[in-house]
Amino acid sequence: QLSDMAFGIRELSKKLGHIRLKLKVKNVFILTKAHDETLIHKTREVVKWLLSYHENDHSYVEDTLKEEPDFDAQGILADPEYQGRLRFWNDELCQKRPHTFDIILALGGDGTVLYASALFQRIVPPVLAFALGSLGFLTKFDYDSYPKTLTRAFSEGVTVSLRLRFEATVMRSRKRAGHDTPQARRDLVEELIGVEAEDAHTHAPEKSWNILNDVVLDRGPNPTMSSIEVFGDEEHFTTVQADGICVATPTGSTAYNLAAGGSLCHPDNPVILVTAICAHTLSFRPIILPDTIVLRIGVPYDARTSSWASFDGRERTELKPGDYVTISASRYPFPSVLPLDRRSEDWIDSISRTLNWNSRQRQKAFT
Amino acid sequence: QLSDMAFGIRELSKKLGHIRLKLKVKNVFILTKAHDETLIHKTREVVKWLLSYHENDHSYVEDTLKEEPDFDAQGILADPEYQGRLRFWNDELCQKRPHTFDIILALGGDGTVLYASALFQRIVPPVLAFALGSLGFLTKFDYDSYPKTLTRAFSEGVTVSLRLRFEATVMRSRKRAGHDTPQARRDLVEELIGVEAEDAHTHAPEKSWNILNDVVLDRGPNPTMSSIEVFGDEEHFTTVQADGICVATPTGSTAYNLAAGGSLCHPDNPVILVTAICAHTLSFRPIILPDTIVLRIGVPYDARTSSWASFDGRERTELKPGDYVTISASRYPFPSVLPLDRRSEDWIDSISRTLNWNSRQRQKAFT
Amino acid sequence: QLSDMAFGIRELSKKLGHIRLKLKVKNVFILTKAHDETLIHKTREVVKWLLSYHENDHSYVEDTLKEEPDFDAQGILADPEYQGRLRFWNDELCQKRPHTFDIILALGGDGTVLYASALFQRIVPPVLAFALGSLGFLTKFDYDSYPKTLTRAFSEGVTVSLRLRFEATVMRSRKRAGHDTPQARRDLVEELIGVEAEDAHTHAPEKSWNILNDVVLDRGPNPTMSSIEVFGDEEHFTTVQADGICVATPTGSTAYNLAAGGSLCHPDNPVILVTAICAHTLSFRPIILPDTIVLRIGVPYDARTSSWASFDGRERTELKPGDYVTISASRYPFPSVLPLDRRSEDWIDSISRTLNWNSRQRQKAFT
Amino acid sequence: QLSDMAFGIRELSKKLGHIRLKLKVKNVFILTKAHDETLIHKTREVVKWLLSYHENDHSYVEDTLKEEPDFDAQGILADPEYQGRLRFWNDELCQKRPHTFDIILALGGDGTVLYASALFQRIVPPVLAFALGSLGFLTKFDYDSYPKTLTRAFSEGVTVSLRLRFEATVMRSRKRAGHDTPQARRDLVEELIGVEAEDAHTHAPEKSWNILNDVVLDRGPNPTMSSIEVFGDEEHFTTVQADGICVATPTGSTAYNLAAGGSLCHPDNPVILVTAICAHTLSFRPIILPDTIVLRIGVPYDARTSSWASFDGRERTELKPGDYVTISASRYPFPSVLPLDRRSEDWIDSISRTLNWNSRQRQKAFT
Repeated sequence: QLSDMAFGIRELSKKLGHIRLKLKVKNVFILTKAHDETLIHKTREVVKWLLSYHENDHSYVEDTLKEEPDFDAQGILADPEYQGRLRFWNDELCQKRPHTFDIILALGGDGTVLYASALFQRIVPPVLAFALGSLGFLTKFDYDSYPKTLTRAFSEGVTVSLRLRFEATVMRSRKRAGHDTPQARRDLVEELIGVEAEDAHTHAPEKSWNILNDVVLDRGPNPTMSSIEVFGDEEHFTTVQADGICVATPTGSTAYNLAAGGSLCHPDNPVILVTAICAHTLSFRPIILPDTIVLRIGVPYDARTSSWASFDGRERTELKPGDYVTISASRYPFPSVLPLDRRSEDWIDSISRTLNWNSRQRQKAFT
Repeated sequence: QLSDMAFGIRELSKKLGHIRLKLKVKNVFILTKAHDETLIHKTREVVKWLLSYHENDHSYVEDTLKEEPDFDAQGILADPEYQGRLRFWNDELCQKRPHTFDIILALGGDGTVLYASALFQRIVPPVLAFALGSLGFLTKFDYDSYPKTLTRAFSEGVTVSLRLRFEATVMRSRKRAGHDTPQARRDLVEELIGVEAEDAHTHAPEKSWNILNDVVLDRGPNPTMSSIEVFGDEEHFTTVQADGICVATPTGSTAYNLAAGGSLCHPDNPVILVTAICAHTLSFRPIILPDTIVLRIGVPYDARTSSWASFDGRERTELKPGDYVTISASRYPFPSVLPLDRRSEDWIDSISRTLNWNSRQRQKAFT
Repeated sequence: QLSDMAFGIRELSKKLGHIRLKLKVKNVFILTKAHDETLIHKTREVVKWLLSYHENDHSYVEDTLKEEPDFDAQGILADPEYQGRLRFWNDELCQKRPHTFDIILALGGDGTVLYASALFQRIVPPVLAFALGSLGFLTKFDYDSYPKTLTRAFSEGVTVSLRLRFEATVMRSRKRAGHDTPQARRDLVEELIGVEAEDAHTHAPEKSWNILNDVVLDRGPNPTMSSIEVFGDEEHFTTVQADGICVATPTGSTAYNLAAGGSLCHPDNPVILVTAICAHTLSFRPIILPDTIVLRIGVPYDARTSSWASFDGRERTELKPGDYVTISASRYPFPSVLPLDRRSEDWIDSISRTLNWNSRQRQKAFT
Repeated sequence: QLSDMAFGIRELSKKLGHIRLKLKVKNVFILTKAHDETLIHKTREVVKWLLSYHENDHSYVEDTLKEEPDFDAQGILADPEYQGRLRFWNDELCQKRPHTFDIILALGGDGTVLYASALFQRIVPPVLAFALGSLGFLTKFDYDSYPKTLTRAFSEGVTVSLRLRFEATVMRSRKRAGHDTPQARRDLVEELIGVEAEDAHTHAPEKSWNILNDVVLDRGPNPTMSSIEVFGDEEHFTTVQADGICVATPTGSTAYNLAAGGSLCHPDNPVILVTAICAHTLSFRPIILPDTIVLRIGVPYDARTSSWASFDGRERTELKPGDYVTISASRYPFPSVLPLDRRSEDWIDSISRTLNWNSRQRQKAFT
């Protein structure tokens, strides 16, 4: 009975890794780096292909392209067939009306896909990413085959994998009215999991992000190591003395987590990867936690210096003593479109190809 | 919509980690090392407590205790109240009638719990493990409090966590009738995932085990490294040149996986940990795979030597060139009883306490 | 013949690790942290002991203690016996007249000994370091036994081990008169080891330090990794993509090198330890080079950001694209006084005690 | 004064890494794998070249080639010019009269050079090694250029680097006459460094080897980990719970030491590399010791199983409880001939080329 339950969950999880979606594409969102000349030309090419592909669809490009001579929006709109069908998006539209878009086409590299995640902080339309160089971890389609890829996606639908994102919230320590305790005498452990833990007066949320790769706390410009408190649910896990700490999603396992010595983690795993950055102990080893845990990482009140948090490598934020970041699985995963033709398991290919994982020495004859 | 699905799975998984069970305890299975004098005395103590606790219950001890003077089975059975209620189990009973038992009480250390897993190869009754020394990863109850622990378990029920087990099957290469290819010219990759992959004539299953910690392939007594082919589902992942390879469950992450350099993995994660043992490359890094993947690890036909497989450190088996082991999530997880009183998250405690994880240098004054 | 030569070198090196010195102590240099109240009291105690020990000796303390009430220099000098014998040192005296001092007594922790190295940039008098907390890597004498330790040192002499120091020089890229190449088109590899390598017009030395632990180049406040060129003698070794690079002496192997994943290195080894900090490749492994090599580590001209260098954790210096640091064995080693009574090999003790090296799990009974 | 001494040693060491030797070549020793057909043909070619090069020289090949048809010794000797000048060596000649040979030419791979070290257990003539495949760590000359390489070596001399070898001696525990202590109650630590340490009755030397790469102790066919005691000079360093331990020379740093996680070590460093193989602790870190230390690694008397020692991957020897191996710098280093034309520092080249050290990901455009 219990066994069957466990088995059922496993089957469900398996399906979640490869969900077939039929697409009724009306509005295509196109994402690219608007300051790269080659990309602008290729974007124009794709837009014209899209506009000619089906007469009722709309293509949205970034509004910075409106006046970009290389893109020549006027030239496109001059064609009566295309009139009104080339539109322009801005950040606000992404935030407020994500449902507008049926699919996102990303042109560039893995960084462009991370940018898609940054733009769509809640609901994310399926993201189909074209690599302009070699294929990456997130850019799984070759740009040169875009007409074939898109024709097929529009007619047959796509397969998406739901990538775990984290919701990360900066929590600021509040001055406590009527309390005389000097700041340095306050105790983060006590405030977060002690008897006062429910007291909303100790901290206030400042800002939240949905992130696809990692939250990193580090010592920033400080020459000395950081002291970081780590909490899981209602427990104090450990105090890390290190250059910092990296909390990564499975997608982020091939990014900073890798440099910090973490394991390589298949993107379908529902886990949180916690790795110290240059721990000042011999006995730190990366840990892998379930994504059902709520993590909190913070700077102790008696720390001599601040730490710096970054979110997918952006939004560098100073955390003063007493501040912390809450990290938990986001309700808004990131739907990454998978290749139809490629074999089901391309993650191993990608770590071998991109990271030279387990690449062996050249054969030496006569050894 | 997709988001909700992902969220639902997560909620289900969370529940799976802590399942409340009411127990109608009629038959208690008691497991211990029958050759340790101290343990025999304590086993006798527990049995007498059980028999006096409720008049209709039966207690099963290993049949090797029947004639053991320190246990003095006759002395117990002499009491009219206990007559017929002290019974004896053997391996066959565990295999054929696991449903007989409502709960397993393990007395000893983590090794005793592994032994429970070995005895119950299919359905496993909930396992409540008492540590006689310090608490371990699997022995979560202090022996000295057994009356309180058991009284409470019998009256209020228990919380179990379903630990992932692997089903591992040794597949033997078969001589192929009518084929002239010399053994060393056969190609394991071709036979497992090539066009002939469906041909049942290449390999035959020999024996299967459900294991709780790990499957290890190593070079055994060979002085030279092993060459090991690794397959995931229908893909050839990589060839590992190493002393061996360790494929561990999350429960096994603190065993051999740790020595081989793998990450520490929370037992609730539905993952497979693949770590090379002394890889002869600079670029091997442990990988974490979903437990929905079927792994196969084998010895290439042109290998100069055999490799040796072991299953939870037992059943050491020679794998000749062409043989392989299939590893997948078992339908029979291992229900480990969790403490009621302890805080929800005791895994971090256990790695800190047992492995000195992230233990820091002694404070040095005046640095 | 060759064998004998190698053997002779080995014997000489062995002697160099433990040199007996007779001391004619006239002038004692006392080093401590002048802002720590406890230390000031203990310093006063030692000074009074020294002044009373032999009537012609002089004791030098930092000139910041002159007006320090806790130290009460006037009180000491009021004693006619001590008049003129308590003197005060400042940085300039250390730099210009290091020969003045026959021995340095350091009171504090390993950081105080590093400070001695910073003060004495050329010749260093033998340094006898008292630990006020637990013994460290460099503080090998227990403060509480100072009268016995000093009496014996003054009468019988001391044993010193010559610790390797590095001389590190910041080399600044120069604007090149009459050259039109834009800065970003210049090539550091070409300028350092190409045909123009001898051209002194490309770089100019800025400042040099003799350091005891390490030279670290890191990304400082930059959120992205650094690109660092590494040269050995007249060769380009490699380009490191990482958070930074740590070049450590054997003495520094237990400091930042340890956090970055380097090996633990006995202080007598004549080697340079080169370890990347969070390398963005799977295949970086720390390397150990002879101290006869001249290393140069620099920022490529086309780097997007600066790197930051620090020297024994001090003197944080920005390196702009084109700048580099030259590191080589210093002609001025650091003579560290070894305990007479302690067994010859106390390094293993110190890594076990201070770092918990190879400390094992607690024994688990009944496993 | 002390500084000058340290400086002098450093200069001497530097010279030792690159010693110029004039050669008066009368007797050339040729080493190859006598069962490889290609190698036999190439050996014949070199021998004929040598015999025709100078009329008084002798060439020695392995006596197993005497009857080898592919080598056709009779055909060579039939030439009147060559009569008496093609000679045959066997193991005994290498052991007893190493001075006979002025130079060793090795044809094959790094394994052939290790074999030269095994044959010449005391004095080793300079070894000039030709790679038949790609260049290795020890095979630094391209076979195809042998006429030019040899002509130049014979006329101008060669540069040799003296590679550190270890002398390793198996010490067997002796039954102690008149002692009643059962074997398992004896204490290795007490016997080696306790008050009885000088008592020659506890252990007797069995056999010694001079080795070039490493001494490895491992668990051999045992399924459980080994317990190994490590001593340095007269100190007990630590007890290692692991699959084994690897004690490597700098030359061996790129062999098994690499697989076990050790650092890469330049061959000129006078150090001993001690690395645990799959240590069962989180806090083991490789250590680097001076080559002036005498190491002893042994099996405690109360170990449940034996360990196995191997010496340069050969001579696999069982060590029973109480046995140990002594390892120290050998008086007989291994003179490896360096290329004249190659740049002075080719070790970094060799680790980059052969091990892909710090090889980076392929560039990804548009990231």
